[in-house]
Amino acid sequence: MDPLERLTTATRDRTAAGLRRTLRPRPPGPSLLDLASNDYLGLSRDARLAEGAIEAVRKWGAGSTGSRLVTGTTELHAELEHSLAEFTGMPSALVFSSGYLANLGVLTALRPRLIVSDQGNHASLIDGCRLSRAPVTVTPHGDVAAVDAALAGARDAIVVTDAVFSVDGDLAPLRELHRVVRGHGAVLVIDEAHALGVVGPGGRGAAYAAGIAGEPDVVLTATLSKALGTQGGAVLGAPEVIETLIDTARSFVFDTGLAPACAGAALAALDVLAAEPDLPERARSHAVRLAGTARELGLATTSPAAAVVPVIIGDPHEAVRAADLCADHGVRVGCFRPPSVPVGRACLRLTARADLGEADLTAVTKALATVKKQTRPYPAPNAGATRR
Amino acid sequence: MDPLERLTTATRDRTAAGLRRTLRPRPPGPSLLDLASNDYLGLSRDARLAEGAIEAVRKWGAGSTGSRLVTGTTELHAELEHSLAEFTGMPSALVFSSGYLANLGVLTALRPRLIVSDQGNHASLIDGCRLSRAPVTVTPHGDVAAVDAALAGARDAIVVTDAVFSVDGDLAPLRELHRVVRGHGAVLVIDEAHALGVVGPGGRGAAYAAGIAGEPDVVLTATLSKALGTQGGAVLGAPEVIETLIDTARSFVFDTGLAPACAGAALAALDVLAAEPDLPERARSHAVRLAGTARELGLATTSPAAAVVPVIIGDPHEAVRAADLCADHGVRVGCFRPPSVPVGRACLRLTARADLGEADLTAVTKALATVKKQTRPYPAPNAGATRR
Repeated sequence: MDPLERLTTATRDRTAAGLRRTLRPRPPGPSLLDLASNDYLGLSRDARLAEGAIEAVRKWGAGSTGSRLVTGTTELHAELEHSLAEFTGMPSALVFSSGYLANLGVLTALRPRLIVSDQGNHASLIDGCRLSRAPVTVTPHGDVAAVDAALAGARDAIVVTDAVFSVDGDLAPLRELHRVVRGHGAVLVIDEAHALGVVGPGGRGAAYAAGIAGEPDVVLTATLSKALGTQGGAVLGAPEVIETLIDTARSFVFDTGLAPACAGAALAALDVLAAEPDLPERARSHAVRLAGTARELGLATTSPAAAVVPVIIGDPHEAVRAADLCADHGVRVGCFRPPSVPVGRACLRLTARADLGEADLTAVTKALATVKKQTRPYPAPNAGATRR
Repeated sequence: MDPLERLTTATRDRTAAGLRRTLRPRPPGPSLLDLASNDYLGLSRDARLAEGAIEAVRKWGAGSTGSRLVTGTTELHAELEHSLAEFTGMPSALVFSSGYLANLGVLTALRPRLIVSDQGNHASLIDGCRLSRAPVTVTPHGDVAAVDAALAGARDAIVVTDAVFSVDGDLAPLRELHRVVRGHGAVLVIDEAHALGVVGPGGRGAAYAAGIAGEPDVVLTATLSKALGTQGGAVLGAPEVIETLIDTARSFVFDTGLAPACAGAALAALDVLAAEPDLPERARSHAVRLAGTARELGLATTSPAAAVVPVIIGDPHEAVRAADLCADHGVRVGCFRPPSVPVGRACLRLTARADLGEADLTAVTKALATVKKQTRPYPAPNAGATRR
């Protein structure tokens, strides 16, 4: 009776299907050109963020030492919450130790009687739906009419969507969704993970850009680990929402508060955004250029709304080969296979950092040209909805 | 139609029930004597951990920049995994961004057909059970015979338990549980959150102390945010388990890797434990003394197995008043009310840090004497199982 035998069998099946993952520890120095991370503004290695983190460690220590409800809330956490709320145009904020836990917290603690969830939503939102135990209606990607229909007759409903979808890189129709949500007395939860620091004036996010930040029926979640270059998450919303989370969100109440180093780095990142409000636009325009390059080469891609550019390959083995070809050209790209994307939609994911230079963009063009020549890409010209 | 009205109503109800929480941001300097945090060894403010964190930030940046599967794995993460496995006597390790997410990851990715869960298990384990979608049998606290009965005829079962329970501070019967698990071909998952760095020789944990570390049917989870003084989590187990998690644990695959500062601090904490192997014993003996003091004063408590000492009060309002009385004596203690503990079992939670001095212990004695005099404590002499 080998209790691990079924794991061994399942691993063998994943190997045959081209779905094995290997952790490849990277060295400290730059090796390949990074188009794979979520470091959209290139801030994770910024000296100002390092100083923010170091100062926080010196002043507050290496950890927050407990739940935010016990000893894990410092004046640094309060300052970060104030700054995040101000930056995004929201009334108040609550910092979690990760964006994943922020999403679990908001979807469970608001105790919805129905959740309407876009089929392209991120795994952490899907897990939040599952944990909430509420009935969940999954609507086709970006389909506002379907959301409207799903809300008919519902009470205490939540509509949840990514602002920018993590692999396809497209923007949710936030203004239209809000109109529908308002009409039904529901609450709109928007995950700004890939939008904060990239979308909207100065990177204030997609809700701000859509003119719905600060509305009482809008709740945002965010991560500090992408454009803000560090780790952690947040929920932003009306005081009623934040009070509810403080009292009842299990992933807040029963988790250790965010490490001071991360809070300090995130505060420094917000300072950088204030000082350089053109950074987000630079990332977005690089994404548009990269998508144009892919399209000109005959590769399937989307129209990027933020800094994420997918190149659809289709077969997972071919996608791995395509990523390897890019690496041969000195370019590290993301390679997404099921279950991260639907079966048959394996793809490369290019992130257009704000700090890419002309030489970098040329290198990417050469890499993608080789991908086009040497792999058998997915035949469809457009990338559809992504589900994970 | 006010979409937040039900939140306002629910908050009013919690206020009436004495269940409101307030975040009290603490200043950087020491204000009260801390007996409330999980900083069991006093390492969070240790200069060696600060140096470890700072060096990591300088070398690796403020964030890991992506999922561990993409750009979020550095040589620093690999080094931490190697050290954690070696320290706990386990074959291999996988670092998560929090212990909460490590627990969700292991309970979902191992795809159990049955989970047998101790009724005192931590919220993150309960959420993992829920997310797994497996049938869950909750067994009475520490009841090995009930676990045995629950496993009868089961295939692909997991038995999950905290090693040290987070509020009651007692130890699970790990050796007996493992014997039962082995007999049924199941897997034993042990959360070492409150045991790592406190229990066992040199703080190697409860599984090590029970002589079952490294067994193929034993999987550990751990946090870096308690005795190790920073933030993050880990799963430790056989290579088959770790490979399965890398490929399929959603809270690993879809989360940003742990921030370098936290990984660096955790590595430094392991170095401190290697250099000062008597630290854990110091924390444990302080706990035994604190429990003895409480008992002599006629307060209800338990026999601590690690560094956690509960003082049962019963009524949530009285518990808050007791914590305030302690604060008046310069001692900050944890105050646990439903839903963190069962209704009627509100309590103070004292953590016996390794670095408490005689004057500290005297201050606690005085504070507890006042609690005994000025509150109406729970009548039962013993603290039973805690469920959250």
